[in-house]
Amino acid sequence: MHPIKARRTHYSERGPVPQDVISTVDFELPPLAEGHVRVAVLAAPINPSDVLTLTGEYGILPPLPAVGGNEGVGRVIEAAADVTNLALGTVVLLPVGCGTWTTHLDLPAKHLVALPSGVDPVQLSMLTVNPPTALLMLTEFVDLQPGDWVIQNAANSAVGGYLVQLAKLRGINTINVVRRASAVDAVKASGAEHVVVDADDLPKRVHAVTGGAPIKLAIDCIGGVATENLARCLVEGGTLVNYGAMSGERCMISPRYFVFRDITLRGFWLSQWFKKATPAQRMAVFGEIAKLIAEGKLEARVQATYDLDHIKQAVQAAASGARDGKIVLEPNGPSRAAI
Amino acid sequence: MHPIKARRTHYSERGPVPQDVISTVDFELPPLAEGHVRVAVLAAPINPSDVLTLTGEYGILPPLPAVGGNEGVGRVIEAAADVTNLALGTVVLLPVGCGTWTTHLDLPAKHLVALPSGVDPVQLSMLTVNPPTALLMLTEFVDLQPGDWVIQNAANSAVGGYLVQLAKLRGINTINVVRRASAVDAVKASGAEHVVVDADDLPKRVHAVTGGAPIKLAIDCIGGVATENLARCLVEGGTLVNYGAMSGERCMISPRYFVFRDITLRGFWLSQWFKKATPAQRMAVFGEIAKLIAEGKLEARVQATYDLDHIKQAVQAAASGARDGKIVLEPNGPSRAAI
Repeated sequence: MHPIKARRTHYSERGPVPQDVISTVDFELPPLAEGHVRVAVLAAPINPSDVLTLTGEYGILPPLPAVGGNEGVGRVIEAAADVTNLALGTVVLLPVGCGTWTTHLDLPAKHLVALPSGVDPVQLSMLTVNPPTALLMLTEFVDLQPGDWVIQNAANSAVGGYLVQLAKLRGINTINVVRRASAVDAVKASGAEHVVVDADDLPKRVHAVTGGAPIKLAIDCIGGVATENLARCLVEGGTLVNYGAMSGERCMISPRYFVFRDITLRGFWLSQWFKKATPAQRMAVFGEIAKLIAEGKLEARVQATYDLDHIKQAVQAAASGARDGKIVLEPNGPSRAAI
Repeated sequence: MHPIKARRTHYSERGPVPQDVISTVDFELPPLAEGHVRVAVLAAPINPSDVLTLTGEYGILPPLPAVGGNEGVGRVIEAAADVTNLALGTVVLLPVGCGTWTTHLDLPAKHLVALPSGVDPVQLSMLTVNPPTALLMLTEFVDLQPGDWVIQNAANSAVGGYLVQLAKLRGINTINVVRRASAVDAVKASGAEHVVVDADDLPKRVHAVTGGAPIKLAIDCIGGVATENLARCLVEGGTLVNYGAMSGERCMISPRYFVFRDITLRGFWLSQWFKKATPAQRMAVFGEIAKLIAEGKLEARVQATYDLDHIKQAVQAAASGARDGKIVLEPNGPSRAAI
């Protein structure tokens, strides 16, 4: 057996330009330990939270030096003699936060979850972060019924796309706000019926779409006055949930919406939900999402895939505001053919 | 009986300079109707909500033309022959929103609440708006226990002063934030132990006061970055309640406080609470407050009193940001001596 050429991304400091701090280096795989399997990473996305981890702006930061990446999928290519639960060739979900931007990982077999075979690993690799975020924002704050309306901005983000699909599967209507007209078609292509470009008269144009039906939930990933524009579309007593700051600005809302319209503004952070959820709750969420991805009912647009030798270009592309799809790493080369 | 010279404030349009739209005019009292009493208004405050009603920025606006003023107290000076529940000379609470900036009001006797005698009518006149606002913000959002901490800005406002006193009566500690050093002494004089001037390092200085004890509730009447400064002082999962916009700016808070610190931002509007509360709930709140005012345990600083001939000066003073006490109208002249 010829030795494996293992490579991984690496950063030892954080800085404002994320692609400047990260690079790819060779590393040597140790002998495979008891109870472990060796996994070749098939696909691992670059999420906004990964970019914020490189810049130091995220809510939890790993100790330095660190390997980039929080989620992904891989294929078992070697197993210690005592491993009985995973056959060679099995596609597995990588544990969240294990440093997935690498060609290979040695992992304890008993903690790994086998995934359905025959499914695009690029789509599966995005299972644990964005789809649960979309699903939980849709279900944890307001008790929505079929026929209800939800409004979201950043609708052309990956979370936005998942939210459109998950809402539709529940019979919930979405109004999808984007910041530039050039993003409208991509959002419609992912299944959204109602897409509007943000502007001061947003409430009026939203009213034209809903016919005045109450909107109880708004989801904000932009900040700045975009947050207020969503608040203005909500019914009295409605809830606004923020999960990001794509504008880089503070959320800005006139007190009149809190005081006179009884709007509540909250935040959602998946890490916190994971920490508080029971294992059964976590498995229910992942199970629903994995099933939908395997059935082709839930997917994200992918703008481009990169190998690890192009990590700087990949991170730069992921950090750019004007994407129309996710940036995904394929550390061992194009992975769709492998399945 | 010589005819009464009745005068009242009057406005028939709204505009950005509140004292420009209001004036005082003579009016003729009609014959006293069955079931009614004639009340001489002793004292009626000018609240921020009154100023916003004149400028058109408030959440509910009365039809025009209108008489100014929302709360106050008066003395029964005449009663229709069929009135049996109110003796002449009784001090009564004026119904909220009845247009209290007037020398006289004819009111249905059965809806009037008699107040304790021998109490300063200027203090009693502020019973229905600011003290319930302070009390309900302290009790409706977070279940606070004796020893807990609350932080508020605009601490030198009337609501701020009531909140200090009501919290102290419950054994709750307050941290009181003001925007200018010249306001510190007045807030301390009203019973506040901890007063700090707002600045970027607010959380650090608040920590020095509390010794790191968690702050579960923050109360904001300023907006702008002052809102974020309060959010930064809250414990993870804490609640921020806004009830006004003294800076004239939007509330500004970085998404990181919603997402990574699980802060909830809500609003409080007394009108809305009144609408939803049962009569028993309303009476419980007013009863507690009236008793405390009568006992001298709850009071507001008064910067100046005016008669109706000086309504423009009074409104201008009330609209000024740099007050250290409430502006109160005494439509029939100095009222303290009358009781």
